[in-house]
Amino acid sequence: MEPKFYSKENLKFLLHEVFDVAELCKRDAFKEHTPENFDMILDAADSMATNHLRPILVEMDRNPPYLENGKIKVHPKMGALMKKFGDDGWISMSAPHTYGGQQLPFTILQASAFIMAAANYSTIAYPFLTTGAAHLIEVFCTKDLQDTYIPKMYSGAWQGTMALTEPQAGSSLSDVVTSAKPTGNGHYLIKGQKVFISCGDHDGCENIVHLMLARIEGAPAGTKGISLFVVPQKRLDENGKLVSNDVNTVGVFHKMGYHGAPIAHLMMGEKDDCRGYLVGEAHKGLSYMFHMMNEARIGVGLQATAIASAAYYNSLEYANVRLQGRKLNEKDPAKPQTAIINHADVKRLLLFQKAVVEGSLSLVMQATSYYDKWASGEGEEKENNFLKLEILTPMVKSYPSEMSILTTSAGVQVFGGYGYTKEYLAELFFRETRIHTIHEGTTAIHGMDLLGRKVMMQGGKATMLLMQEVMEDIETAKKHESLKPYADTLSKKLLKLQEITMHLMSVAQSKGPETFLSDATLYLEAFGILAIGWQWLKMGTKTEELKQAGTKNYSAEFLDSKIYTLQYFFEYEVPKTEGLFTRLLSTNRVTLEAKAEQIV
Amino acid sequence: MEPKFYSKENLKFLLHEVFDVAELCKRDAFKEHTPENFDMILDAADSMATNHLRPILVEMDRNPPYLENGKIKVHPKMGALMKKFGDDGWISMSAPHTYGGQQLPFTILQASAFIMAAANYSTIAYPFLTTGAAHLIEVFCTKDLQDTYIPKMYSGAWQGTMALTEPQAGSSLSDVVTSAKPTGNGHYLIKGQKVFISCGDHDGCENIVHLMLARIEGAPAGTKGISLFVVPQKRLDENGKLVSNDVNTVGVFHKMGYHGAPIAHLMMGEKDDCRGYLVGEAHKGLSYMFHMMNEARIGVGLQATAIASAAYYNSLEYANVRLQGRKLNEKDPAKPQTAIINHADVKRLLLFQKAVVEGSLSLVMQATSYYDKWASGEGEEKENNFLKLEILTPMVKSYPSEMSILTTSAGVQVFGGYGYTKEYLAELFFRETRIHTIHEGTTAIHGMDLLGRKVMMQGGKATMLLMQEVMEDIETAKKHESLKPYADTLSKKLLKLQEITMHLMSVAQSKGPETFLSDATLYLEAFGILAIGWQWLKMGTKTEELKQAGTKNYSAEFLDSKIYTLQYFFEYEVPKTEGLFTRLLSTNRVTLEAKAEQIV
Repeated sequence: MEPKFYSKENLKFLLHEVFDVAELCKRDAFKEHTPENFDMILDAADSMATNHLRPILVEMDRNPPYLENGKIKVHPKMGALMKKFGDDGWISMSAPHTYGGQQLPFTILQASAFIMAAANYSTIAYPFLTTGAAHLIEVFCTKDLQDTYIPKMYSGAWQGTMALTEPQAGSSLSDVVTSAKPTGNGHYLIKGQKVFISCGDHDGCENIVHLMLARIEGAPAGTKGISLFVVPQKRLDENGKLVSNDVNTVGVFHKMGYHGAPIAHLMMGEKDDCRGYLVGEAHKGLSYMFHMMNEARIGVGLQATAIASAAYYNSLEYANVRLQGRKLNEKDPAKPQTAIINHADVKRLLLFQKAVVEGSLSLVMQATSYYDKWASGEGEEKENNFLKLEILTPMVKSYPSEMSILTTSAGVQVFGGYGYTKEYLAELFFRETRIHTIHEGTTAIHGMDLLGRKVMMQGGKATMLLMQEVMEDIETAKKHESLKPYADTLSKKLLKLQEITMHLMSVAQSKGPETFLSDATLYLEAFGILAIGWQWLKMGTKTEELKQAGTKNYSAEFLDSKIYTLQYFFEYEVPKTEGLFTRLLSTNRVTLEAKAEQIV
Repeated sequence: MEPKFYSKENLKFLLHEVFDVAELCKRDAFKEHTPENFDMILDAADSMATNHLRPILVEMDRNPPYLENGKIKVHPKMGALMKKFGDDGWISMSAPHTYGGQQLPFTILQASAFIMAAANYSTIAYPFLTTGAAHLIEVFCTKDLQDTYIPKMYSGAWQGTMALTEPQAGSSLSDVVTSAKPTGNGHYLIKGQKVFISCGDHDGCENIVHLMLARIEGAPAGTKGISLFVVPQKRLDENGKLVSNDVNTVGVFHKMGYHGAPIAHLMMGEKDDCRGYLVGEAHKGLSYMFHMMNEARIGVGLQATAIASAAYYNSLEYANVRLQGRKLNEKDPAKPQTAIINHADVKRLLLFQKAVVEGSLSLVMQATSYYDKWASGEGEEKENNFLKLEILTPMVKSYPSEMSILTTSAGVQVFGGYGYTKEYLAELFFRETRIHTIHEGTTAIHGMDLLGRKVMMQGGKATMLLMQEVMEDIETAKKHESLKPYADTLSKKLLKLQEITMHLMSVAQSKGPETFLSDATLYLEAFGILAIGWQWLKMGTKTEELKQAGTKNYSAEFLDSKIYTLQYFFEYEVPKTEGLFTRLLSTNRVTLEAKAEQIV
């Protein structure tokens, strides 16, 4: 039997029951699709994941990328895989028909990516970074650039990247110093270096296309002087032949996990011959980049969830077959041992993982649902979905990322001593997921984004719209006896969060931004827990409705499992907000008052 | 400058101020020692750590042990190091003079081990496992066995181990099946296999001495039929030459971290020629083994703390030199960037690590202090210290182990993207410490040990004695204005814990052991947080006393740092008990009611 790394039943439950993808098919943008068509795509993703990606997971882990003669070498199958990602339409699945795409909803793209990332996270960095980069070129570049790059990218021949970070500019993008010198010949000359560029160089594609932040000479300091450029590793000469564009790979980062994907250190313009092509208008680069970044942030939440899913099923399978000890009321040591899943604490470790995985996946789908309604919507609906997506994104990115560290650790724990060894995959998932609280904005950055920007954007409109929707879902959940106590809990917790938000706003007024935002990470954490609580209520409501309707589409175990996992979440996870709330209301300012030299 | 991996100032503060090691020197057992003498030993440990252990940390990580021709090969320096551990007296430091030891307190042994483990955790498994095994032989074996084994072990020539685990008997020791057949010739014939034996075979010593659990033929099932044997890898023949004892290494476990120490899979008696020598009386093996195990459990807490300490100083150093971003009230992007330690959230990540590291180290010292008073005491004092050690051990083992996963993760986070790479040590510490919640009893086992056994042992006497001491410390702390609010908090929290304990005892009565113990892990977690809060109050009290006395022995920064870190602990960590208490009082039994097949 193939090892299970995600639940198809759960994914379909989310898509069809909780998020009603059928509704999307009524919209102009997606009218050529049907829910059945979506299922076929997910089955194809499953086949890709099972037959092509999972089989090389361990090989990739044991053989990380290396730099040889200025080129990063990756797993030898990666070239063929990238071609397959292109040929089978994965890279272009969400692209418009005009670019040969299938114009599929972002939800279906992410659901497919989820399956593949659960099988082998590293492999999906290649195609979906390319999708994001090509999509950005689609929206903001000239036809000329589009025609040059997009077909090659969607075919899998050319890799796309996001090239933001520099040694002195990580979280602080305003410190980007890579320079762009106008030439008057339709291109700029780029000079500088970039670090931590995922798929920034490798031998699985014939070219790499960087979407790169740089500063045009004479541009203002800070974020208002940053422009975005298309900077290919190789450019086409007058004969249409690929020639060097003076982008050199000087290093590959050796990492704790995520070994399948290469992370490059690049130098541009060492020979003053690196050409970059301006995207859109000068000095507006950061806003364009965030078009791609916001999608990538949802992707990070999804990928962390996918790794956590793989770790969950890995440990669930083991817990069902590993015999150890006896039930506590069995005193006869001559009786056979029991499967460890029968021990309460092992069940707790499993339910913890399951509650986080399914809650997180639901939250990601909530975000992609807003995305699709924004992308395919009009007028107020479009605007409202955009705002709800904006406020939800920090939680979508951070909750799964932070929690997957803990759930993959719980996965290790289920295996006992074996979990610490390379005989099983548990330790690999633990290493693999640790990147997610860092890339595409650290958790601290998202905390400040949420509390410092999103909560009060447009006078608090995003918050209000989101809360309105949550309150409606709470009312619906209350109709079910099994859910009512938890709906009440969430309702009370949200009131408390609102009170804390008001309190913090008054702190902002009286004490300024530093004090206001000093515990933004904790605020984000509490908000995240409640957002997942909301998703569990939504899933609970659907479960009860399906039970009442006597569904045959889902197994009784699946439906029971949903209700138990919801209980777990409200019994064990939601109470964690109590301590966070206590701290958020405290007037102690230790993290501000302790000076650097007083932390020894 | 050498990288810092622990704070000498803090260690001396704990030993001399908080735990008053001078008092130990007044006792008969330790009367040849002076506090100055202890300091010299710690300086020697520092020199060993800095000059011999830390320099090979990365090498050991990159070159894990491997099996070749039935022998495990470890780092080539390990042989010389083991000899040095012997020659310099580290292995025998706590042994009585009669065995050539220095008869040093367990506290000084653990303090020395702390320094060395912070430098390079793996290396200390070799000497201190040997100490524990030799100590057990000292206490329970015949003179003949003592004379044969102890000198060789204390010299570092022979390695000692604890050999408990078998493939089917991990947490459930009652399922040990390794057999021992009496021969009537002063030895038994051992047959079976053992897994996860730390330092169970390696080429750095000439022989390995296993303290091994086995079942004498015809012994009762369960733990009451387990005996303990000395089983050497090689035995001495009639000419005093080492010959094979039919103990074969069939595997070495490849692990996520902790690469410096080999973990072996052993087969005994494949040729029916493996001799074992009974320790003490038949069928009482588990109680002897726990003599060593209880010391080892304190050791695990200490080692987790040591790794967390190394990770803390590693990230603290980086936070002081890494420039990124500006203070939130600085809007001019042309101004220079600030060191990241000046950002509130980075300070939070650092204070979190520091609070856990110093709180944990203090808790470990609390345990070793009880140990020394038990070992050197008489009558009621001896008994009372034993009881307090007994009840504290689950927290001493588990709190640092669980929390070091989170604090080393915070260490990674401080480094941002670099933290995920092998350019720095952050990721190594994160991998290294993950073993500690597993070996020497998983966290779940310790939860059940605490709630199911220790809390009510001798009619709750251990609990009462511990609480009495804590309450006295709270009263002392209350005299200081800066500590009073936190002393009050701890006092209230302990009352609540008591209420919960009573509640759980009534659950035990009405619902039986499974329900009673279903959330024992959470009970342990809450108890652990409060135990650390207690240690912070003790440290806070000493700090205020030293300040008032105008001490010149500690820097002002050190003393300020203590108070700020105490504040951090009470502001951010103690509130976490709220959610735990809520859950512990809930009547929901999801981890019992959900059946195995309902977790899908």
